[in-house]
Amino acid sequence: MKKILIINGPNLNLLGKRDKKMYGSKTLENIEKKCFDKCKELNYSLQTFQSNHEGDIIDILHKSDDDVDFIILNPGAFTHYSIAIRDAIEGIETPVIEVHMTNIYSREEFRRKSVISPVSYGQISGFGYNVYLIALEAIRNILEG
Amino acid sequence: MKKILIINGPNLNLLGKRDKKMYGSKTLENIEKKCFDKCKELNYSLQTFQSNHEGDIIDILHKSDDDVDFIILNPGAFTHYSIAIRDAIEGIETPVIEVHMTNIYSREEFRRKSVISPVSYGQISGFGYNVYLIALEAIRNILEG
Amino acid sequence: MKKILIINGPNLNLLGKRDKKMYGSKTLENIEKKCFDKCKELNYSLQTFQSNHEGDIIDILHKSDDDVDFIILNPGAFTHYSIAIRDAIEGIETPVIEVHMTNIYSREEFRRKSVISPVSYGQISGFGYNVYLIALEAIRNILEG
Amino acid sequence: MKKILIINGPNLNLLGKRDKKMYGSKTLENIEKKCFDKCKELNYSLQTFQSNHEGDIIDILHKSDDDVDFIILNPGAFTHYSIAIRDAIEGIETPVIEVHMTNIYSREEFRRKSVISPVSYGQISGFGYNVYLIALEAIRNILEG
Amino acid sequence: MKKILIINGPNLNLLGKRDKKMYGSKTLENIEKKCFDKCKELNYSLQTFQSNHEGDIIDILHKSDDDVDFIILNPGAFTHYSIAIRDAIEGIETPVIEVHMTNIYSREEFRRKSVISPVSYGQISGFGYNVYLIALEAIRNILEG
Amino acid sequence: MKKILIINGPNLNLLGKRDKKMYGSKTLENIEKKCFDKCKELNYSLQTFQSNHEGDIIDILHKSDDDVDFIILNPGAFTHYSIAIRDAIEGIETPVIEVHMTNIYSREEFRRKSVISPVSYGQISGFGYNVYLIALEAIRNILEG
Amino acid sequence: MKKILIINGPNLNLLGKRDKKMYGSKTLENIEKKCFDKCKELNYSLQTFQSNHEGDIIDILHKSDDDVDFIILNPGAFTHYSIAIRDAIEGIETPVIEVHMTNIYSREEFRRKSVISPVSYGQISGFGYNVYLIALEAIRNILEG
Amino acid sequence: MKKILIINGPNLNLLGKRDKKMYGSKTLENIEKKCFDKCKELNYSLQTFQSNHEGDIIDILHKSDDDVDFIILNPGAFTHYSIAIRDAIEGIETPVIEVHMTNIYSREEFRRKSVISPVSYGQISGFGYNVYLIALEAIRNILEG
Amino acid sequence: MKKILIINGPNLNLLGKRDKKMYGSKTLENIEKKCFDKCKELNYSLQTFQSNHEGDIIDILHKSDDDVDFIILNPGAFTHYSIAIRDAIEGIETPVIEVHMTNIYSREEFRRKSVISPVSYGQISGFGYNVYLIALEAIRNILEG
Amino acid sequence: MKKILIINGPNLNLLGKRDKKMYGSKTLENIEKKCFDKCKELNYSLQTFQSNHEGDIIDILHKSDDDVDFIILNPGAFTHYSIAIRDAIEGIETPVIEVHMTNIYSREEFRRKSVISPVSYGQISGFGYNVYLIALEAIRNILEG
Amino acid sequence: MKKILIINGPNLNLLGKRDKKMYGSKTLENIEKKCFDKCKELNYSLQTFQSNHEGDIIDILHKSDDDVDFIILNPGAFTHYSIAIRDAIEGIETPVIEVHMTNIYSREEFRRKSVISPVSYGQISGFGYNVYLIALEAIRNILEG
Amino acid sequence: MKKILIINGPNLNLLGKRDKKMYGSKTLENIEKKCFDKCKELNYSLQTFQSNHEGDIIDILHKSDDDVDFIILNPGAFTHYSIAIRDAIEGIETPVIEVHMTNIYSREEFRRKSVISPVSYGQISGFGYNVYLIALEAIRNILEG
Repeated sequence: MKKILIINGPNLNLLGKRDKKMYGSKTLENIEKKCFDKCKELNYSLQTFQSNHEGDIIDILHKSDDDVDFIILNPGAFTHYSIAIRDAIEGIETPVIEVHMTNIYSREEFRRKSVISPVSYGQISGFGYNVYLIALEAIRNILEG
Repeated sequence: MKKILIINGPNLNLLGKRDKKMYGSKTLENIEKKCFDKCKELNYSLQTFQSNHEGDIIDILHKSDDDVDFIILNPGAFTHYSIAIRDAIEGIETPVIEVHMTNIYSREEFRRKSVISPVSYGQISGFGYNVYLIALEAIRNILEG
Repeated sequence: MKKILIINGPNLNLLGKRDKKMYGSKTLENIEKKCFDKCKELNYSLQTFQSNHEGDIIDILHKSDDDVDFIILNPGAFTHYSIAIRDAIEGIETPVIEVHMTNIYSREEFRRKSVISPVSYGQISGFGYNVYLIALEAIRNILEG
Repeated sequence: MKKILIINGPNLNLLGKRDKKMYGSKTLENIEKKCFDKCKELNYSLQTFQSNHEGDIIDILHKSDDDVDFIILNPGAFTHYSIAIRDAIEGIETPVIEVHMTNIYSREEFRRKSVISPVSYGQISGFGYNVYLIALEAIRNILEG
Repeated sequence: MKKILIINGPNLNLLGKRDKKMYGSKTLENIEKKCFDKCKELNYSLQTFQSNHEGDIIDILHKSDDDVDFIILNPGAFTHYSIAIRDAIEGIETPVIEVHMTNIYSREEFRRKSVISPVSYGQISGFGYNVYLIALEAIRNILEG
Repeated sequence: MKKILIINGPNLNLLGKRDKKMYGSKTLENIEKKCFDKCKELNYSLQTFQSNHEGDIIDILHKSDDDVDFIILNPGAFTHYSIAIRDAIEGIETPVIEVHMTNIYSREEFRRKSVISPVSYGQISGFGYNVYLIALEAIRNILEG
Repeated sequence: MKKILIINGPNLNLLGKRDKKMYGSKTLENIEKKCFDKCKELNYSLQTFQSNHEGDIIDILHKSDDDVDFIILNPGAFTHYSIAIRDAIEGIETPVIEVHMTNIYSREEFRRKSVISPVSYGQISGFGYNVYLIALEAIRNILEG
Repeated sequence: MKKILIINGPNLNLLGKRDKKMYGSKTLENIEKKCFDKCKELNYSLQTFQSNHEGDIIDILHKSDDDVDFIILNPGAFTHYSIAIRDAIEGIETPVIEVHMTNIYSREEFRRKSVISPVSYGQISGFGYNVYLIALEAIRNILEG
Repeated sequence: MKKILIINGPNLNLLGKRDKKMYGSKTLENIEKKCFDKCKELNYSLQTFQSNHEGDIIDILHKSDDDVDFIILNPGAFTHYSIAIRDAIEGIETPVIEVHMTNIYSREEFRRKSVISPVSYGQISGFGYNVYLIALEAIRNILEG
Repeated sequence: MKKILIINGPNLNLLGKRDKKMYGSKTLENIEKKCFDKCKELNYSLQTFQSNHEGDIIDILHKSDDDVDFIILNPGAFTHYSIAIRDAIEGIETPVIEVHMTNIYSREEFRRKSVISPVSYGQISGFGYNVYLIALEAIRNILEG
Repeated sequence: MKKILIINGPNLNLLGKRDKKMYGSKTLENIEKKCFDKCKELNYSLQTFQSNHEGDIIDILHKSDDDVDFIILNPGAFTHYSIAIRDAIEGIETPVIEVHMTNIYSREEFRRKSVISPVSYGQISGFGYNVYLIALEAIRNILEG
Repeated sequence: MKKILIINGPNLNLLGKRDKKMYGSKTLENIEKKCFDKCKELNYSLQTFQSNHEGDIIDILHKSDDDVDFIILNPGAFTHYSIAIRDAIEGIETPVIEVHMTNIYSREEFRRKSVISPVSYGQISGFGYNVYLIALEAIRNILEG
């Protein structure tokens, strides 16, 4: 059974609680529930993790390298400056799929640059909470492709 | 029955014929075949279009606006400078999903800027030919979401 | 009798059909009708042309050089990158007046740069569909000046 | 009867006196005379004002806000750096039409940036002294449009 | 008794009269009234000055140097380019506190640069008309600190 | 009774211990003591927090959102790059006042950019340790304004 | 017998007709005639092609890939922005020699950047119409080298 | 008898009164006295002018054009942004020699750019108050050269 | 006996485990072992520390200031953006030697900028794991110099 | 008999000795031999010169101005910064043809800028050692053209 | 008796021989002759030196440091990039006056930057060959000042 | 016996003679003496070279390639612009260690860029004259490592 890890970066614990206009009314728990359902359907095992601490995200990337088959990462604001997370992704072998719920290209200028993208396996952005489910489908495509 | 249009921009007719190291050995026909199969499975009707002419892509975007429900667009090199295609997308109502087969962020500097992204509904990049199939799944997610 | 040619670039065929908030509810046909009326009043002969193809616009600029006395050009998105159209204008002798319906300076950053302006005879922008009529008045001023 | 105010910025008092090659041989008085004639014809009342002082131009913009219907402004060199004049225009309700006698886009690099344009109603540039007359026609178009 | 001078730059005479959405409905007179009340309470003597002329602001900065103990300056648009005012502040000994009623950092890009800040004693921005009162409190803190 | 939270970012625990020439000889404890005194006087309840960890600051911003009425934040070096803290501020409803003890505009070039300012309620900088007290006065002004 | 294709981009059909001061008085036909003569002498077969349409140039690059041994390309204004032509050159195997009749480095700033050069086999620029003949000599050198 | 005009821009009235470390202890009056003496020796007539108002400097440049043979201008801070003064110099025929008392190239970055220099006859900077006397010698050299 | 502290930043715990081609096959433990041996030889006491958390590195820098005589710091990715670590180094008195195992100047553009270097005592980079031993020799040189 | 001078700049004496992968296995002597043969064939007299000293190249450019009819210059690394060589070329009358053995546009960013090109008669780059022979053919074309 | 050294950089040996339109018809010998005459008049001893070699100019700057009282340097093209000459000037104690015969600010963009100016005592530019004589007068002013 | 060459670039002959505050009071001879002693101790043979001429440094790099095992290079000001020296290092096989006596990152902006670093084996900077001795230790580490 394939193992998936979903990592959510800073402020994503606020999903569905604040700024609903930008990010929708689903909480992170709601979204993770949908992912667990989808993984059950696809017969994957799923772990989830959220932290506002850059170091925690690096630690779990290292720790999971031997344990999981795919990582889905929404780096939140770390997208734009955390070269340390970038290096962690580059340093491990597990493929990392980068997701963003909003279309980061139609927002502020500084959100258009991702230091993560050059080392991520692929990017999916702009479909709201669906990005997590689409990423799971992408994994299925890669595995079955 | 939902209608989908897949548009491929310049040089994508060379897929599987040249530069296989970068883009894989599947031809555009092979990939479109996979999309037709997937659409059949999802019960969508599919049309496909490829052109090396910017004007043709604008024309078909205009023409399809009343006909199709979703457009999947791989703008090829036009990604980086065709503000005219950008304006065409902005001018129509049909949502346009932007796809790229390669991870454009790990290539030359000039490929990291997309003038299309600010007006596209979402972006999927870096999964090889799977981006088209993932985009179809994305549409299913949006419609069923 | 003086001969005028009005050229409209990409996406201007959508005028009055989409994005009415930005460009008003008059169609290109409505606007051209007003120009024909004005030319009748001024005793000028008028031809009009619209294309989404950069090459078509270059072709007609070349072809019209010996035929018309003034060209009014709304280059649409080509304003910002078509050095080929710029060179076509520089290569012909007929004066070209550049018009924009919106105030391009109060829109996105990338719309503030025109590669056409350095070679156009004059620029008129920001008065809605009136720019075409004002350009005709400008021609009258030049001829009668 | 509609009231128009024409404001000319720094160095425009030199028109027709110096640098005739660039700006023509008509003096500011000659040009204003033509504008008075045109206004008479159009049945508008006209006032004119010229100053080399940024503060004077701001003062008259404020003062005229309740008095006139349209302002035609040739900001001269202030075009390129006077954010104070920009804010004055933004602060008043009377529409301001920005005019330039030369094609500022075919001159030095620094002349291609206008801090005024984002807040002006429209721009007309490059037709020599005709810009003032064309601006008056533009006003007629707007009023009669 | 300590002496304070409040200087307001270009367009601030329009406060409460225009663009109330951005700057609130209090006029400059209302705000100065509040400052006079506050100074009375704090036992400071207060003078106020407003001008749309850069040169007037430089003149009063020079002239006041021997007369007042603190200057509160809202440079308006001069914030962004008047190196002459900057040099005047650097040339005098009286400390100058720079205030802005709006959060200039959440506005247009060009408003984020202040040529004044490197030479001002401190900056207070973004609290609406309260910035003047807060600046007076700041002076009290410094004097009593 | 209104509740205030003062957050100090990285290295501010060194205040009064090192680099006294730049930051003065008062320790963070001394300054917080002054703030407690001031709050007592103003009848506000005060909590203080200091951390060198970006994640801790984000956590406390989230956690305090329902508990406090105003936050005073000296982001230290995070001012210049922590988009994650920026997003945390944007995600909560409590107004955040940004303070800096030194005039950051007269220091190194890279200190002149704040990624926090566009989302903070107001900014006070350059008055030494007084910025905390001035911020408390600012809150009083807002509440009593 | 080796086969050569000479492609001329936008506005080069105007050669010898307009702007003779910059480009000389030889028409494209004159120049092609000289190339046919030279090829006869060198025993190469020659085809020529000119278009103002970017898409046409991409199409012929694709189509000729199996047919010809060398391509000489004067991309005209497309030199500076057509990444699509660049990708077409990169996608085919036939070596492409880039030529420019004028010294593009002594003209406007924007003409100094070629997006084509990184993928062309070699560049020859600045010898007037001779560049085509020199390119033919270059091919002979490579083949006989 | 040749006529010379010396114009001093903003804040130069503070010379010898403030910031003596940077500009020396001689007042503007002292320096002008030295210039009058020098002119007497050289048999030139001299007028002097100082203003903190950009408009005044433009006015006097216009007004003096027919009256004087040479202008020595220390534009002060206007050096760096007054395109209006630049245009005034370009618009008149009298040669203008630009002087700066300090070595502006060893000061802040923004002081290294002069918008005046491209239109001034020559520049002398960095010799303290001697620049005025050296400029007078320069005039003698030109006249006697 | 002199005390040395070696701090390793994010992802350096992966040394010798991943990406061996870039960083060699020695683990961090192997390298630290070599350093302990060298320190024994030099008669220095050594402590080592590694963390993926920026805050932890700042904390230990503060904490060690009174305890150790020299710090050797490999900041890893924090090199490029952690102004907070920079300020921590500036705030303490213990000299910090910055080391990098790879030649950061022959890697990606963004790795060529160090925000740490302006405040570090010296830099050694590009000798593989030897940088730590060379840094110990450097300390010996300074102490014995 | 026409006289040609070939100048090779810094490090070109290493040709064929080092870095053969980039520059091929022919030594500078081998290449010059081929040029002498070619010149014999074309009935030109040839001199060659190589130096790693910028000053020597300037000296020989000056000295040869009256002696030779054409100069072929491979400036090596001086291409990118030697404005002194540029000025020497501009100062003499003999036409200088700039050659580069590699396609400098497909190498590092800093190699894409030539300070020499704006003043050279023409440029040939990217054909390996053939550039010298092609340049000789170019001269023949010019002379016989 | 005061000793002066005049150093002329690359290509200045061509003065009066080439490009007379830009630099006038006086040769370097003519100009030096005028300087010798002037020095005789002022009772200074003069040496002159010209070289196209950067290293020679550095050597003579070092060598002359103990021998001469003032150096007049026209660095020619080295003005724009020779940091080595800059460092030589900074390393010696003799004051160096930088002169340029043309107004470098009205020429190409790249000529507007001087790496020499931040360390030179003063700059004189734009008066043709008179700059050398004016520099001698400047020295007299300093000495007699 | 291993052979070492130490090359010192422009102005380093002034060490200990001028600007002692920046570079210390040791002369180049003193430092070289220390290096000879160290090499004796390590049993290496040492040659030293200093020149202010870029070409001389390139010549000796070429000449020494077959003779020495390691080169220690302090490029002085050439660090920042001599691409010719960079290419010389890239062209030879002997590893080159780049040293700087000062912390170039805490000096002027332009000193922070090294064109040499991308091709040097390693860099050591900021330890005063010790950099040469540390470099020798680094060589020992590499050889014994």
